[in-house]
Amino acid sequence: MRAEFSEIISGEAEKIDLLLKTLPELEKTEESPWTEVLEAEEYALSAGGKRIRPVLAVEFYKLFSKKHEAEDFVYRAALALELTHTFSLIHDDMPEMDDDDMRRGKPSTHIKYGAALGLLAGDGLAILPFEILSDLAEKGCVSFETSIKLIKTLSACSGNRGMIAGQVLDLWSEQRAADIDGDFLRKMSELKTGRMLKASCLFGAILAGASEDELKSAELYAENIGLAFQIVDDVLDVISDAATLGKPIGSDSERMKPTFADVLGTGGAMLEARRLSKAAADEILKYPGGELLSEFALSLAERKN
Amino acid sequence: MRAEFSEIISGEAEKIDLLLKTLPELEKTEESPWTEVLEAEEYALSAGGKRIRPVLAVEFYKLFSKKHEAEDFVYRAALALELTHTFSLIHDDMPEMDDDDMRRGKPSTHIKYGAALGLLAGDGLAILPFEILSDLAEKGCVSFETSIKLIKTLSACSGNRGMIAGQVLDLWSEQRAADIDGDFLRKMSELKTGRMLKASCLFGAILAGASEDELKSAELYAENIGLAFQIVDDVLDVISDAATLGKPIGSDSERMKPTFADVLGTGGAMLEARRLSKAAADEILKYPGGELLSEFALSLAERKN
Repeated sequence: MRAEFSEIISGEAEKIDLLLKTLPELEKTEESPWTEVLEAEEYALSAGGKRIRPVLAVEFYKLFSKKHEAEDFVYRAALALELTHTFSLIHDDMPEMDDDDMRRGKPSTHIKYGAALGLLAGDGLAILPFEILSDLAEKGCVSFETSIKLIKTLSACSGNRGMIAGQVLDLWSEQRAADIDGDFLRKMSELKTGRMLKASCLFGAILAGASEDELKSAELYAENIGLAFQIVDDVLDVISDAATLGKPIGSDSERMKPTFADVLGTGGAMLEARRLSKAAADEILKYPGGELLSEFALSLAERKN
Repeated sequence: MRAEFSEIISGEAEKIDLLLKTLPELEKTEESPWTEVLEAEEYALSAGGKRIRPVLAVEFYKLFSKKHEAEDFVYRAALALELTHTFSLIHDDMPEMDDDDMRRGKPSTHIKYGAALGLLAGDGLAILPFEILSDLAEKGCVSFETSIKLIKTLSACSGNRGMIAGQVLDLWSEQRAADIDGDFLRKMSELKTGRMLKASCLFGAILAGASEDELKSAELYAENIGLAFQIVDDVLDVISDAATLGKPIGSDSERMKPTFADVLGTGGAMLEARRLSKAAADEILKYPGGELLSEFALSLAERKN
């Protein structure tokens, strides 16, 4: 990615990090044992990560609103995406799911705070986005209609027929290597990772009052980078090392989970990731100012962690 | 409760049961392993129960809209409350929480479907209410503003500073009998049970376009019956038998959880429950047509399961 774009992206990610650290909804306003759940949620949110979802929302907002900077309410809405994403990570790491003790080089939330509080912290972060989004409308920052569109998008993309369906397929695929083919992996990835990336791009577009064509481009971009992102994830799990990746490598094969690296080979998988990134990049280059998101898409195929 | 009122209440509960069984959002629209999570959610929802939350929403709607029957959209909104309640029950029963293998005489969801699917079914039911409520506005059944009010109410009442805070206090109280007094129990109950009952009464009032005074009465009613409900729950856990209650008795004392029965004695607790029910009943008798909700409040103190 060109240096200037890379700087903009990391600048936005830093801003989002800061906003997550100072989220008023997680502030301790009293001394009571229940506030430990707020601590656990803050802990999970502070584990870092690339903040891709809120960054996509902010950048799609800028693109379609033709503004150089996004207003505060755009960041507030974008945070909702990171909260939902983090709730899914907390629950994914739990013993009954992936049973991962570490997340980004730190103990997972359920290890640090115990499984009960981990469960509840995930629940809290699953609900909070809807409070934040409805609040934006009640405070007059966005129209009631816009807020409803965001809430519908987030709930549909993260719920039973979106991210959660993807998580169920992921669970199902364990120990079933023989039944898994490329189509299954594509579907699983489209649901598990893709839908939330779609929600992210749509968030920016909806907040910018995008046209039907623009909404379609945002969706197409999201679909392509979503799949590219998952393919690269699978390849890195095979070819990277734990220090670069910030988590143990080989975790998929340990769990007998077939991945794109198995189905396509690491070389073939990388070719496919590049093809998808290019398709996303081309789609968004149609729009004046689309260079940043275009380069961002291309960079996903080259990421090292 | 007078027979005619009792019939109306059980009629509404039956209608809600039927609507839960035919929820289009949980319909299997394809053959894929992920749809097992829909089955698990249906299973959890079909365990029965008194459907108090949606019934309260429907009855408060009728009261303040002065209608004898509630429209379909009122029931749709009311179902959201039962979904949130059921999500909390699924997660509450899990091994890291209360570790209850049985719920209403049937295996708990995580026993029937495994802990991973139990976790995800809870997550799915935590998100679905917001999809249903935003959908109501997108379909024009309620205004965008009304839907936002419902979403704000439900997320605030069920989230970190509501039901979830109550669950954290409940966890914390285990093995800490010495630190628990009536104030703690009152606060825990107000959060854990009370807030969702408040959301339920407010749902009906919001949908009916209630005045400020009416909203306040709905809240006051909910606070009083919420506490009464919890007190009776604690007493029944001591004095009832498993067959009547549909779940093991003595589960609180087994877990060294102090309850209102310990703090007030079963007799004192029942007196307090009756006082609270009476206060709720009186508050709502101010309104013409309030007799049903008033008798319902009084009946809570006399319930056997």
